[in-house]
Amino acid sequence: MEHRDDCVFCKIVKGEIPCIKIYEDENALAFMDIAPLNQGHVLIIPKSHYETILDIEPGVFGWLGNVVTRVCKAVQKTLKPDGINVMQLNGKAANQVVPHLHIHVVPRNFGDGLSICAWDPIPGSMDQIKSTAEAIKKNI
Amino acid sequence: MEHRDDCVFCKIVKGEIPCIKIYEDENALAFMDIAPLNQGHVLIIPKSHYETILDIEPGVFGWLGNVVTRVCKAVQKTLKPDGINVMQLNGKAANQVVPHLHIHVVPRNFGDGLSICAWDPIPGSMDQIKSTAEAIKKNI
Repeated sequence: MEHRDDCVFCKIVKGEIPCIKIYEDENALAFMDIAPLNQGHVLIIPKSHYETILDIEPGVFGWLGNVVTRVCKAVQKTLKPDGINVMQLNGKAANQVVPHLHIHVVPRNFGDGLSICAWDPIPGSMDQIKSTAEAIKKNI
Repeated sequence: MEHRDDCVFCKIVKGEIPCIKIYEDENALAFMDIAPLNQGHVLIIPKSHYETILDIEPGVFGWLGNVVTRVCKAVQKTLKPDGINVMQLNGKAANQVVPHLHIHVVPRNFGDGLSICAWDPIPGSMDQIKSTAEAIKKNI
């Protein structure tokens, strides 16, 4: 397990900074966001330090995704929100603040006024989409 | 594998509606969003019909998360964005449009003007956060 001395979430994993924990296993930790977007905003992290999804092996997001599922079901059972947003932000340009991979679980309610995952779908250029797809396929 | 006759994504899985595919395996399909938020916006879905994350067994998000990781790495290699937003929306209140579980991979660039996944963190009430955590822990 790798940690970084200057990483806030690694410090939480090591117990050097407190957190309000809701779940822990060998590999993952789930705790409350202390600046919640809504009541029940939870963060799920791998205990080992990875900066973004680009730094992990596929297996990591596998077990991490299972913890996310479990947290979502517990949040739903507890708070009965109208919906849930799951977000994972990679890089400052994507608004990632703490550079240790984390997944946000945000309960949503009709009329809660949050715009975090809202947009108006505008059809794109099919030619550009097709050529982009061809390029991505070569790298997958 | 379960499909719903009235589901657009199930129709894509069955080949009744075309898609611009970038990856497919036994369980999952990745294809281009034709109303992309940015160049390289990809959707990853399970082939079987699940409406939201609340309807799946933990194992499902396991292999699905692995495909998401793989897609993110391919998008990064291809388009070299400054960041990537991964979003999974559950329920209309969370802005889910197609009621078949899907994960958005959205490449981000500094100055791209998108407002998704952005917010100003405002510290919450520690008392409320702690009591919410206690309640969630009982259901996990």
